[in-house]
Amino acid sequence: MPRATALDTTALQNALTELPGWSVAGDKLHKEFTFKNFAAAFGFMASVAIEANRMDHHPEWSNVWNRVVIDLVTHGAGNRISALDVELAKKIDALAQQVTR
Amino acid sequence: MPRATALDTTALQNALTELPGWSVAGDKLHKEFTFKNFAAAFGFMASVAIEANRMDHHPEWSNVWNRVVIDLVTHGAGNRISALDVELAKKIDALAQQVTR
Amino acid sequence: MPRATALDTTALQNALTELPGWSVAGDKLHKEFTFKNFAAAFGFMASVAIEANRMDHHPEWSNVWNRVVIDLVTHGAGNRISALDVELAKKIDALAQQVTR
Amino acid sequence: MPRATALDTTALQNALTELPGWSVAGDKLHKEFTFKNFAAAFGFMASVAIEANRMDHHPEWSNVWNRVVIDLVTHGAGNRISALDVELAKKIDALAQQVTR
Repeated sequence: MPRATALDTTALQNALTELPGWSVAGDKLHKEFTFKNFAAAFGFMASVAIEANRMDHHPEWSNVWNRVVIDLVTHGAGNRISALDVELAKKIDALAQQVTR
Repeated sequence: MPRATALDTTALQNALTELPGWSVAGDKLHKEFTFKNFAAAFGFMASVAIEANRMDHHPEWSNVWNRVVIDLVTHGAGNRISALDVELAKKIDALAQQVTR
Repeated sequence: MPRATALDTTALQNALTELPGWSVAGDKLHKEFTFKNFAAAFGFMASVAIEANRMDHHPEWSNVWNRVVIDLVTHGAGNRISALDVELAKKIDALAQQVTR
Repeated sequence: MPRATALDTTALQNALTELPGWSVAGDKLHKEFTFKNFAAAFGFMASVAIEANRMDHHPEWSNVWNRVVIDLVTHGAGNRISALDVELAKKIDALAQQVTR
């Protein structure tokens, strides 16, 4: 199945069990992040931008100071949630926890 | 004493005890960071850029994939290390360890 | 008058004459930018982030691929538009047109 | 021919004719950019970071305030210049001139 195919209800529920803090809102995969300050929030956004563009799959997101709200949906799947969104959500969570190794 | 005054040898040695991983190289405060990947490295750089510009004190830095090398020196202090560099080094270390709170 | 004081109607109308493309929407200074692609849009956002943080005045903004929507308002002015917002709007326009000199 | 193959002398000279401001220094494709200020310089770097990571081909670069120095070389081509470097150089030049469309 192509990654950009809309997930059915069962597949989506299964995916959510592996995505702590993510929910479905308005048919999009949704999560809100809070950082220590603006610099930390925007640094996170820069790292997400780099990963998302590599997938050619871009978030709908907004920022106010230390908060970042992200919605993920796949236009090519009829504006529904696909495996691409789940994949990007996992990358986003990894980047939110990134530190020097 | 203005923050942009060059530190004497004793003050510099004292400062280094609070800056793990930083050393003096070529009369500059020097540290190398390694991240999980390029996205994490550049996200860190973005957060440092935001904080550094607020201080109007900018790093000399380079990046190759997951590595970031930073040198700090104060032009207004005769190209020597000042309290401004120590302050920025501490902010940089904090950002390198930043995660969602 | 402190820069963070709410502008009265006349002052706001005068300010708008110097801010092409900006309008007042929901009591905020509002503008939408479209770039060539995602990389250009996010690079613009990074430059705005650096300037905004220096002013300690942060935008409310969102991004979807090549579009960036910015709303400016001053919390310290009772969530109304102040001279700080006008100043940041001018910096944002300058950055949107930035090229190598 | 794979894009990551080292260019021979003739191919490299031909490529340079299409890359104004780029030269060969230390077997790398080299260019220095100067921007209006730090915010503009770093915004440019953010856009380049996003494009470079999509190619999985990352620059060796450094920044001091409004200056960005970029060196491009292909490790998989024996640390010589390949078509990948030429492609990234063209993208970099396009981003340096990017404005809202």
